[in-house]
Amino acid sequence: MFYMQMALKEAVKDHPRTWKNPKVGAVIVKDDQILARGHHEIFGGPHAEVNAINHLADEESAQGATMYVTLEPCSHTGKTPPCAKMIVETGITTVVIGEVDPNPLVSGKGIEYLESHHVKVIVLNTPLAANDAYRFYFRNHRPLITLKYAMTADGRINFSNGQRSRLTGQEAFNDNQDLRQNTQAILVGMNTLKIDDPELTVRNGAIFSLIRIVVTHNVDEIKFSNKLFQTATKESPVWVMANQDPQKTVPENVKIIVKSGWTAANISEYLADVGIQSLLVEGGSQVLNQFVAEKQFNRIVTYVTPLLFGNQALPVLTGIGLQEPLKLSLASVETLANDVKLVFERSN
Amino acid sequence: MFYMQMALKEAVKDHPRTWKNPKVGAVIVKDDQILARGHHEIFGGPHAEVNAINHLADEESAQGATMYVTLEPCSHTGKTPPCAKMIVETGITTVVIGEVDPNPLVSGKGIEYLESHHVKVIVLNTPLAANDAYRFYFRNHRPLITLKYAMTADGRINFSNGQRSRLTGQEAFNDNQDLRQNTQAILVGMNTLKIDDPELTVRNGAIFSLIRIVVTHNVDEIKFSNKLFQTATKESPVWVMANQDPQKTVPENVKIIVKSGWTAANISEYLADVGIQSLLVEGGSQVLNQFVAEKQFNRIVTYVTPLLFGNQALPVLTGIGLQEPLKLSLASVETLANDVKLVFERSN
Repeated sequence: MFYMQMALKEAVKDHPRTWKNPKVGAVIVKDDQILARGHHEIFGGPHAEVNAINHLADEESAQGATMYVTLEPCSHTGKTPPCAKMIVETGITTVVIGEVDPNPLVSGKGIEYLESHHVKVIVLNTPLAANDAYRFYFRNHRPLITLKYAMTADGRINFSNGQRSRLTGQEAFNDNQDLRQNTQAILVGMNTLKIDDPELTVRNGAIFSLIRIVVTHNVDEIKFSNKLFQTATKESPVWVMANQDPQKTVPENVKIIVKSGWTAANISEYLADVGIQSLLVEGGSQVLNQFVAEKQFNRIVTYVTPLLFGNQALPVLTGIGLQEPLKLSLASVETLANDVKLVFERSN
Repeated sequence: MFYMQMALKEAVKDHPRTWKNPKVGAVIVKDDQILARGHHEIFGGPHAEVNAINHLADEESAQGATMYVTLEPCSHTGKTPPCAKMIVETGITTVVIGEVDPNPLVSGKGIEYLESHHVKVIVLNTPLAANDAYRFYFRNHRPLITLKYAMTADGRINFSNGQRSRLTGQEAFNDNQDLRQNTQAILVGMNTLKIDDPELTVRNGAIFSLIRIVVTHNVDEIKFSNKLFQTATKESPVWVMANQDPQKTVPENVKIIVKSGWTAANISEYLADVGIQSLLVEGGSQVLNQFVAEKQFNRIVTYVTPLLFGNQALPVLTGIGLQEPLKLSLASVETLANDVKLVFERSN
């Protein structure tokens, strides 16, 4: 388990540069000596196993060695040649795997290849949290959905209806940037677009495509002069989930996706079909409420901020009420300067 | 500072048994040897200084010793003889004090007595958090007011209006019992009385008088069959802050206090006048709102619980809105099983 822990640490070294690929780390060990380590560094780049093998001072030394790898090695030729084959060729005789790959293209096949080539395979159960979206997507054919909001100590998200309130401090703001950097799509509703006029971008730019989505039931309300549309690029396009095509000319890199009744469920379905593994819903209260009411979310990230807004301010959820309380479980608590980040997971 | 830290730890050993008295700890030191320690153990009992002196193996040994005491020694004869006098008689020649006593009966006089008897006095600034209410009361002639509520991850305190929701788990429940044990009065409004029918008692019984208060603008709505009144005793009486005297017969140990318009400010004033140093406001949302709107509070204790209640549920604050956001500062964060306790202090 010591070497697997080391491989797990190795895996997240270049987080979030692997984008849609899983984070993977590998450690090669022989006679209780670490011969080499490696991780998947960047989307499209060599896999962790290959990097570890390439880092061997002397490839001969790996004869009879054990590889600890956090995810099942691949056996198919994708962007890179299959890892399982390379492991066998290097003379590694034992592979300890942290988690079977949930991707059906790989799942079980890497293990099969290794075993059929007389490599001993041991499968542990040490799934990497950083691969939650990857895992969830392949198991459920749905994106992992995170609802995010900042709220005051009395549970409000905006002081007055027509004006934006910046609630949190710099550390929570930075943390939110990390959340965005680690998601493949961000979604907001029309009120947030109108009131906040957000860019929904990532500081220093997204490393890979970050799709920014706005949902509307009245496409003609949209103003393409909003920052969101003005900052649309090929790498960071804007999708409008709309009830119909707009009358106006649509700017470049803005895609209109028409459906008469967008629900949280069919948004999720649509995103899954186009291969999006993770979605961050950043509000406002009506959109958050829609995802909650339909139980279309996996996680809630909230920043509780030391303010009171009182009764006239906007609550976290607005719209159709819940039939019954929805149970969550507390996943983590973190103090970020004067704000507190709470992460909850859905449990029913 | 090492010995003062020791004295501060000593001070809170029997928390909350000192009730309205401050928590005090004392350590007697000579030639870097600890000769004795003591603390104020129970309301009406000997003071920390006396206990420390009584714990000396040999009273002669304290000649020329230094006493570290967290609060200024008293110089008046109250329930016990004055400590300053006893310190002088024991032959202690230096007294290091953590905090000047805010009680005007003592403040500065203990130091004066010691100095006029040739004892060297050093005053540090190490106020004990456990004496916050004591200090605040004597400085401001107002009780230290703590607002307490449990809220869901979407900022709601009750799922349906007419029915009580138990929100938190056992650890948060126990923590709330500690809050009650450390306050001198608890207050709720009529809705809480009707819906929750609470006793507002402390598990195992309050050590000292715990005054339980209900505020009403319509005294005839009160049902004396409620548990609150049924459990009224001499030690734990119930006060009704009412608009007028009720038509019904008032049970024993229930006191009706009549004023045409009870506000948070005049409740605070009334309690100060009768010597109550600390008040815990436990809801509901209208009463909490009243204390917030009038800025009549010092602290907020909230337990955030892993549930979502949605839009139909009761928010933390109901009633007149705030003119502007009220700033708090985050004092502490504590995970209590599945709940998170956040403590805020008011900063404007």
